Amino acid sequence: MEQRISFVTLGVRDLVASRRFYVDGLRWVPELEVEGEVLMFRAGPLLVLSLWDRGHFEREVGTLADTTGILPITLAHNVSTPELVDAVLAEARAAGASEVAEGVQREWGGYTGYFADPDGFRWEVAWNPGPVGQLVFPPVADTT
Amino acid sequence: MEQRISFVTLGVRDLVASRRFYVDGLRWVPELEVEGEVLMFRAGPLLVLSLWDRGHFEREVGTLADTTGILPITLAHNVSTPELVDAVLAEARAAGASEVAEGVQREWGGYTGYFADPDGFRWEVAWNPGPVGQLVFPPVADTT
Repeated sequence: MEQRISFVTLGVRDLVASRRFYVDGLRWVPELEVEGEVLMFRAGPLLVLSLWDRGHFEREVGTLADTTGILPITLAHNVSTPELVDAVLAEARAAGASEVAEGVQREWGGYTGYFADPDGFRWEVAWNPGPVGQLVFPPVADTT
Repeated sequence: MEQRISFVTLGVRDLVASRRFYVDGLRWVPELEVEGEVLMFRAGPLLVLSLWDRGHFEREVGTLADTTGILPITLAHNVSTPELVDAVLAEARAAGASEVAEGVQREWGGYTGYFADPDGFRWEVAWNPGPVGQLVFPPVADTT
């Protein structure tokens, strides 16, 4: 098995609310949309984020855990400066993010904050100046 | 906010078990490893998968939901033929995947199955012949 994530799929309770947040709020452009069922976005060069109605999700994957609270998963959106962390968190708040944890200087040298989407999924907004943080940006010389 | 996932972080209960599965079992090569804390892998051109000890996760993100059962998230590993779906599921089983749902022909035209990692996180192994499925592979002409 190669080291590859192709899709990240989140089971959501209300696709209309998801659409309001990601499309109307954050101005993301859907790649595919089936009303009441699924909403997909490109989220990287070879990566798709899929928001899937929980009913459909359960019929395929199985009955979901009764989850209230924070789930043991975050999606990170990395940016190139600490200032952009604050800017994206402000944008998420304006888009209606239910919870926002302001940017904090981390002991490992970065600066990161969090916001929650309409289902409570946590997005980390991160400036990571370390070597692993650089992996997620295109090489500077590559302007193609 | 641009449409970009840079990191996928999973909160895990036992990094030794995670290592046994992903490194010893699936032969993934760590990009960064801090014993007892975190294990990171490249998972795409600009994407990192991070397995983070739940204790550390909770101290930064907040107290986790009491989750027993299936979480409303899956990570998909797409492959280029239906046969490869079966092959990867067999590999996951050999690596110690706790649960495996064999490949099924889906009504949308694809062929997919699932396996669970040591924490129960669901990976979908998918052959998706549709347009969105093609987004997650490099263009055939691009051999760089």
